Amino acid sequence: MISVEEALQKILDAVTVLDVETVPIMDSQGQVLAEDIISGINVPPLDNSSMDGYAVRSADTTGATQNTPKTLNVIDTVIAGSISKNEVTPGTAIRIMTGAPIPSGADSVVQFENTDDPKNKDVSLNQTPAQVNVFTPVIPGQNIRYAGEDIKKGALTLKKGMVMRPAEIGLAASMGRSQVKVIRRPVIAVISTGNELTELDTPLSPGKIYNSNSYSISSLVKRYGGIPKMIGIARDDEKDLLSKLKQAQDADMLLTTGGVSMGDYDMVKDILARDGEMIFWKVRVKPGKPLAFGKIKSKDKDGNPRAIPHLGLPGNVTSCMVSFELFVRPALLKMLGKKNLAKPTVSAIIEDTVKNNDGRRVYSRAIIEKRNGNYYAHLTGPQSSGMITSMSMANGLVIIPEDNGSINKGDTVQALMLDWNEEVNI
Amino acid sequence: MISVEEALQKILDAVTVLDVETVPIMDSQGQVLAEDIISGINVPPLDNSSMDGYAVRSADTTGATQNTPKTLNVIDTVIAGSISKNEVTPGTAIRIMTGAPIPSGADSVVQFENTDDPKNKDVSLNQTPAQVNVFTPVIPGQNIRYAGEDIKKGALTLKKGMVMRPAEIGLAASMGRSQVKVIRRPVIAVISTGNELTELDTPLSPGKIYNSNSYSISSLVKRYGGIPKMIGIARDDEKDLLSKLKQAQDADMLLTTGGVSMGDYDMVKDILARDGEMIFWKVRVKPGKPLAFGKIKSKDKDGNPRAIPHLGLPGNVTSCMVSFELFVRPALLKMLGKKNLAKPTVSAIIEDTVKNNDGRRVYSRAIIEKRNGNYYAHLTGPQSSGMITSMSMANGLVIIPEDNGSINKGDTVQALMLDWNEEVNI
Repeated sequence: MISVEEALQKILDAVTVLDVETVPIMDSQGQVLAEDIISGINVPPLDNSSMDGYAVRSADTTGATQNTPKTLNVIDTVIAGSISKNEVTPGTAIRIMTGAPIPSGADSVVQFENTDDPKNKDVSLNQTPAQVNVFTPVIPGQNIRYAGEDIKKGALTLKKGMVMRPAEIGLAASMGRSQVKVIRRPVIAVISTGNELTELDTPLSPGKIYNSNSYSISSLVKRYGGIPKMIGIARDDEKDLLSKLKQAQDADMLLTTGGVSMGDYDMVKDILARDGEMIFWKVRVKPGKPLAFGKIKSKDKDGNPRAIPHLGLPGNVTSCMVSFELFVRPALLKMLGKKNLAKPTVSAIIEDTVKNNDGRRVYSRAIIEKRNGNYYAHLTGPQSSGMITSMSMANGLVIIPEDNGSINKGDTVQALMLDWNEEVNI
Repeated sequence: MISVEEALQKILDAVTVLDVETVPIMDSQGQVLAEDIISGINVPPLDNSSMDGYAVRSADTTGATQNTPKTLNVIDTVIAGSISKNEVTPGTAIRIMTGAPIPSGADSVVQFENTDDPKNKDVSLNQTPAQVNVFTPVIPGQNIRYAGEDIKKGALTLKKGMVMRPAEIGLAASMGRSQVKVIRRPVIAVISTGNELTELDTPLSPGKIYNSNSYSISSLVKRYGGIPKMIGIARDDEKDLLSKLKQAQDADMLLTTGGVSMGDYDMVKDILARDGEMIFWKVRVKPGKPLAFGKIKSKDKDGNPRAIPHLGLPGNVTSCMVSFELFVRPALLKMLGKKNLAKPTVSAIIEDTVKNNDGRRVYSRAIIEKRNGNYYAHLTGPQSSGMITSMSMANGLVIIPEDNGSINKGDTVQALMLDWNEEVNI
């Protein structure tokens, strides 16, 4: 059996960064930019005021105090979006609003609060007085935002490989871009296998269970930025499984759940080996040992042969979700063009004693809590791989190394965080 | 001027948890469950095998070793989804696949690996042998998952208030639920104000800038689970602003950007005060001082009067985004029914010296990095509130307290994390 690291490396080697699509900036959130964006404009385009106040020649304000103000003649008012036709000459000022371009002749702005502008008494008064008294001197450049201060025309502002977040979307907009080129999202086909599976909203006959893996796995696909293609349940017969596999042939990756154990009808791994290439079966990990990985033969939309990376996840609900976090998530992020493929981990003090004697690396469902500056981990009760309740209670997985007989209460362990908090949504 | 805490409290007091909607479980991710879900079934429904192997009477295996195996007559094979009609009597065994119900008479399962089943030589062999040799004893209950072990019929399994994550979605599915009641997502209307604003993809005339706030703010709304309603640009005249406000009247919250400063055409706060209720204007915070908050009069779909919470965000790109993180995000999460409203913070060692003399709390854009187990923070260059590039570089905001003259290089500060990593997407 291969190790977790070997398995992950083989999976990552088999997937590639996907191709590029052009999307409206509002749709690009979370995707990776696939072009360098060079600004065609200065941002801001012109020198402008960062305050509501008076555009002045700073020399005219030298020595101004509350008791000995400098009096200037007000020759115009300029608001954002307009340009004053007048020039500030010695002894004059132009009343200016935040964002308005600095009039010629002025080298600084005195904010309203440092003058006797009527606004100081009542902000709803929109009067341009004939004269203004300035109480505080300004220095050249004061309260001016210079053209190109944020973004210089010709500057490489957004780089290929950056993740589009709200700030990057705003940045693209501030350069006038309504669309960007990004790596497209992978379409991940999801098939659950097993005669025992019953679709939701139908009665459960004896010996059957509801299909839950399709939903938890497809939700994980969405959570990490992929597009799930839910194909449904394949019965444990070759004809049905092959017909469902055919529906997955345009996907970027295929995930099946179940059918990878030693049972008589565990056909997923057999068909993968026969109709494709089996790269590995079984990993030294608990839960999740019977993971199968390979490439299944398919056709592209022009009928040309292609091979789809196929992960055969175990059928147990927890094994299935843990395998996704360990092996599918990094592959999905690589396809999306992301560089940071590792889940965050923390060092935590364990509050249980855990035995591990079978040579596999164990990922135990745990609640990780921060108390007095330290992280503590306690297990979410029984760790049977069939228990989805333990996965729901957990916010992390405590890693028990392969070569470790046991971990004692009070030892420091590494914990892989499933949820930092509840903000990861949509 | 009120403090950040007072402002946030006034905003939170003015918003309420939204009403309930019923959605397909696949659409519920990130939403808060609005019902208690009691399981109508046991999960698993029947005692079943956790291994591929042989269902036996454990007493029949006592003393079995590799050299002195116990030989049992194989009377049937049972797979998941089927029920064996036969009973395991002394001296017999039923070949059983993972997930198949335990036949009557059996109290344990011996896995294939501890027998001479043909699978051990070739997993693709599906033969039911007439007899099997068992090499290892089993104890009662071994390799059996009992009915209700994961979820007991009648148990409160998913509680009102839980956030639907992939595990909770799988859990709902495992009980057969295809739909759940959740708190609906808030619709947040977004209007940018200012004569200087130009829509994307149109040429920029002198003195104008592109409207970027609508995009960064609407992206933040999406990121935290709201539904943005982008109304566009309102000119600095009352008629246009009122017509845009009318388009927002069915929203759960209204966000405007700009129009809250001291300028002649900063009408947002004036209209809020005149046509609604102004709860506060200006907060002791930097960037973001001229924040306005109140309730604007509106009508519901039946024509009845209602009041919409309205945050007038500053027009500067960075002030606008920082105000969103500090004030809008918690309100949005409260409307979604979430309990954990605070952004995560870390203690970090600052690598710059920052002066703060004006009595406001400063949130400085910073890059927070973990090195040798400690977090370090360094500022992203110039902190002008007009600079969106500094927001794009940042993954956190260093908090400089109001009462602090300066923070020196090497001091420990609190940093509010904007992004833990790049996985927050879609």
